[in-house]
Amino acid sequence: MRTPPGTRADYVHFRQHSTRWNDNDVYGHLNNTIHYLLFDSTVNEWLISNRLLDTRNSPAIGLVAETGCRYHGEMSYPSPVTAGLRVAKIGTSSVRYEIGLFADDSDTAAAEGFFVHVYVDTETRRPCPIPDDTRTALAGLMKEA
Amino acid sequence: MRTPPGTRADYVHFRQHSTRWNDNDVYGHLNNTIHYLLFDSTVNEWLISNRLLDTRNSPAIGLVAETGCRYHGEMSYPSPVTAGLRVAKIGTSSVRYEIGLFADDSDTAAAEGFFVHVYVDTETRRPCPIPDDTRTALAGLMKEA
Amino acid sequence: MRTPPGTRADYVHFRQHSTRWNDNDVYGHLNNTIHYLLFDSTVNEWLISNRLLDTRNSPAIGLVAETGCRYHGEMSYPSPVTAGLRVAKIGTSSVRYEIGLFADDSDTAAAEGFFVHVYVDTETRRPCPIPDDTRTALAGLMKEA
Amino acid sequence: MRTPPGTRADYVHFRQHSTRWNDNDVYGHLNNTIHYLLFDSTVNEWLISNRLLDTRNSPAIGLVAETGCRYHGEMSYPSPVTAGLRVAKIGTSSVRYEIGLFADDSDTAAAEGFFVHVYVDTETRRPCPIPDDTRTALAGLMKEA
Repeated sequence: MRTPPGTRADYVHFRQHSTRWNDNDVYGHLNNTIHYLLFDSTVNEWLISNRLLDTRNSPAIGLVAETGCRYHGEMSYPSPVTAGLRVAKIGTSSVRYEIGLFADDSDTAAAEGFFVHVYVDTETRRPCPIPDDTRTALAGLMKEA
Repeated sequence: MRTPPGTRADYVHFRQHSTRWNDNDVYGHLNNTIHYLLFDSTVNEWLISNRLLDTRNSPAIGLVAETGCRYHGEMSYPSPVTAGLRVAKIGTSSVRYEIGLFADDSDTAAAEGFFVHVYVDTETRRPCPIPDDTRTALAGLMKEA
Repeated sequence: MRTPPGTRADYVHFRQHSTRWNDNDVYGHLNNTIHYLLFDSTVNEWLISNRLLDTRNSPAIGLVAETGCRYHGEMSYPSPVTAGLRVAKIGTSSVRYEIGLFADDSDTAAAEGFFVHVYVDTETRRPCPIPDDTRTALAGLMKEA
Repeated sequence: MRTPPGTRADYVHFRQHSTRWNDNDVYGHLNNTIHYLLFDSTVNEWLISNRLLDTRNSPAIGLVAETGCRYHGEMSYPSPVTAGLRVAKIGTSSVRYEIGLFADDSDTAAAEGFFVHVYVDTETRRPCPIPDDTRTALAGLMKEA
């Protein structure tokens, strides 16, 4: 059985994204790759706005280790898309974000995915513990699916 | 002498666009190609919201004949970008849109460009007059630079 | 235990992709979303070159139901990327493609992912059996991981 | 009178680019923004392969000051696109590249554009002279239109 799509109540932090003409592919709907652009943008915007990521100066950065998405329904430019974000799991050096994408005013996710960051030392590029301030902030996004 | 950048007062219609993580290139600023995605999205969103474009059923569509952009300053994800739109010239079958992109609250354009649509018959793909309802609406966007 | 990365021998069909300046993100490597652009392009190019997909006229088309990717190593513009393609599972109306991305001359995948198409009737958008000619061709791409 | 499209003989250096599924927009042809991705990628690939650009260590980098494109004909995924490159003008701190895009085996450009780089000091971001080795290499790409 396929898991039913989630709703807005399953997520903690929200960001609205505008869509772009070329997001629609030849079938007139958001191409499956656009979802990942929105995942990436949602996670990093949350990190940046919480002063947890400075691409020039952070001693540790999150590299993307795994991503995935299940597509439940279609979305289209020019309608905006709302992304809901939650954290599903926090490990020693990795964190699993889960994201739901909602079309217009719909309460049911049109797509749901995940995004795993592994923290590495900026210089050595070897895994390192999640920085403490990041860990604390991530705990505030925790929500069980 | 290079023309000085325009301001918001030079434009008629405005749309705010969110930016995306991968809009920034390796130098940490919006890549020069992103501006064109925003031009395209601003023009088509205006057409669609005014019921002047239906990609499946319109008998005539605007094909892009020429575009250009001058870059005055840098913009970066995650800040949103506001696009200002005006129409500079309406011909028999073509229209020249001009677009200014504004970072955050700045009143001075970070970039300015243009976008020429030539209307073609959807079936024959040969130039045809701009449809009357479109022409009327375009007149409302006219503004001399 | 994490599964070790696959090699070229694990795949059946190959396509080389050029990379683009803006594929690299601020860290100087292919952004995680680019991989999906290459998955999509590899699968559809195979379908089109085998005359199994005509976006204007096919009575049935594959909609993307689920995708995923594990990232093992970094790739960067301007180096080309070779995509290896195989089919892992063929169902009544769905097919699971698996794709490995290889940097330069490396025999070890820098990333591996999957891409599930569900066939739908172009008009009704309801699931339908995979067309016979497509099923036959897909069988030629089968390979167990 | 509109200038007729150029041919391959008008260009000096060539690079073939693969296309991507999502390059096609809802009309089934390369979206007008993709051309700029190919301009950018052609110019920078030439610089990098000639050891004239190292995004991490170059003391001077070229920032994009102006770009433009005229669209003569349509191109579509999955066909590759060949980009022809020439240099039209070399100033003290700026260079104007011109690029023609050719579909498949066509000798007539489907689109032609330009791309102006202004060299700036990496630290101060103020204009500086084009580095000598770059200037010498650019001279080898000169061709009058």
